[in-house]
Amino acid sequence: MLARAGAPVTFIGRGPFVDAVKHNGLFLDTVQFQERVKVNAATDLSAARGAEIILFCVKTTDTAETARDLAKVLERDAIVISMQNGVDNAEQIEAASGLKALPAAVYVAASVPSPGTVKHVGRGDLVLGPKNETTERVAAVFNRANVPCRISENLPGELWTKLVWNCALNAISALGKVTYGEIIASADAKQLLETTVYEVLAVAKASGVQPAGLEDPKAALAGAHKIAQQMAATRSSTAQDMVRGKKTEIDSLNGFIARRGKELNIPVPINHALFTLVKLAQESFAQAEVALN
Amino acid sequence: MLARAGAPVTFIGRGPFVDAVKHNGLFLDTVQFQERVKVNAATDLSAARGAEIILFCVKTTDTAETARDLAKVLERDAIVISMQNGVDNAEQIEAASGLKALPAAVYVAASVPSPGTVKHVGRGDLVLGPKNETTERVAAVFNRANVPCRISENLPGELWTKLVWNCALNAISALGKVTYGEIIASADAKQLLETTVYEVLAVAKASGVQPAGLEDPKAALAGAHKIAQQMAATRSSTAQDMVRGKKTEIDSLNGFIARRGKELNIPVPINHALFTLVKLAQESFAQAEVALN
Repeated sequence: MLARAGAPVTFIGRGPFVDAVKHNGLFLDTVQFQERVKVNAATDLSAARGAEIILFCVKTTDTAETARDLAKVLERDAIVISMQNGVDNAEQIEAASGLKALPAAVYVAASVPSPGTVKHVGRGDLVLGPKNETTERVAAVFNRANVPCRISENLPGELWTKLVWNCALNAISALGKVTYGEIIASADAKQLLETTVYEVLAVAKASGVQPAGLEDPKAALAGAHKIAQQMAATRSSTAQDMVRGKKTEIDSLNGFIARRGKELNIPVPINHALFTLVKLAQESFAQAEVALN
Repeated sequence: MLARAGAPVTFIGRGPFVDAVKHNGLFLDTVQFQERVKVNAATDLSAARGAEIILFCVKTTDTAETARDLAKVLERDAIVISMQNGVDNAEQIEAASGLKALPAAVYVAASVPSPGTVKHVGRGDLVLGPKNETTERVAAVFNRANVPCRISENLPGELWTKLVWNCALNAISALGKVTYGEIIASADAKQLLETTVYEVLAVAKASGVQPAGLEDPKAALAGAHKIAQQMAATRSSTAQDMVRGKKTEIDSLNGFIARRGKELNIPVPINHALFTLVKLAQESFAQAEVALN
């Protein structure tokens, strides 16, 4: 969207994606339009040299390694924005590399059906915070490019709210092999989702965070149902990863809640169960891959 | 094993299995021996006409229909033995057909890798009860055929003990795509298994049943670990069903505990979660099958 609005953008990614983008541009198959956008692309992180804004979009399993490599090429005043799932990415980036990152809460339903193509099916808006020169500057860049970006004085709460949705939907969609719409169509799955949400809210509270917009737990459930309805045809990124035999971000989602719940002595049996089952299944895939090699 | 010991046995099953057995006998690939056994086979339930003992081995999803059809051909004094998973099969058979069935607790790790072949990997023993003329007669038949069969005065407790193992291992093996050995090799999966076991024991207690040999809950955990070790290379029947896109028996396992827990007001969140996830996944398979047809 930034490149389409005229900003100089370079994608850094894996070979097949970069090749496709170099040759044919990036095909945006969105709810509002279909358009091919010309954009730079490179496989090497050194292409980030001199960048003013870095959108840090790797999976949380790759955060530390990417941050370390990125730190070697970035200027001192570069703005790194973590657009990842989870609530502790800025911490993890800084711990690994010394880089200070701004976290953003990202709401978008999209997938990459083939290298060079992004299929967008819902939303596409950002939250940054707190209000200061940097966040205002970045928000203006996004808003000019038709990516709605608001600034919140409770960004940790915004990240936790997104964590609530991810914990509620991702693992159930993956383990049950269902869309979000199928989850809320089943009374049992809805009950499972609700217990998951209550556990995450209890851990948020014990962590001293108020998830934004979820002051009333019933609003949290209503919100989860609404998101599931808005994205009824969506399968979670965790489900997409599992189908492809790839590592998931479960450690940053239900796994984070399981760890934090244990530290804070808050019972989170359902989040622990969802985490454990996804983890077992993805490791079983990894072993199957080894066996095939 | 009965046929191998010389008893007149007829298998009733589906076409491919029956054809294979008719042409080549039944190949028993067991831990103790490999042997081809000549045995009768038929696809029609009318082949049960005149039978003295009926080993009722259908999946619990097919109990009612099979019982109704069987009732039409059995003599009044035929002995029906339910060798199924779950604790309420005799009830279900009687409710559907009026037939009185003796439940048996069956311990065996086996699979059918191809029609006409049984691959046996562990145990192979039965429990009947209570002691009376009929159970003693049947136990003697099995024991003569080298199938260890003991008689218990607490058969409901024996069935519940097996239910404990099935609830503990089946769904986790299926959802996590792992063997029993991999479950107990993971601290998180072990914790999940333990919570599942405690929930089932609480429901057993509230149901007025004492699972046999599990008077001490710690013995129950030790027992689950021991079974998992004895059958370390095993994947549960639920896992085998899910891989093949077949209906599972989850309604009679964690699903039974979820329903009974709700009736008795015993919290069983983990059993409910395991039931719900397996149910979603198997219905998603069923839909995929419809979509392909």
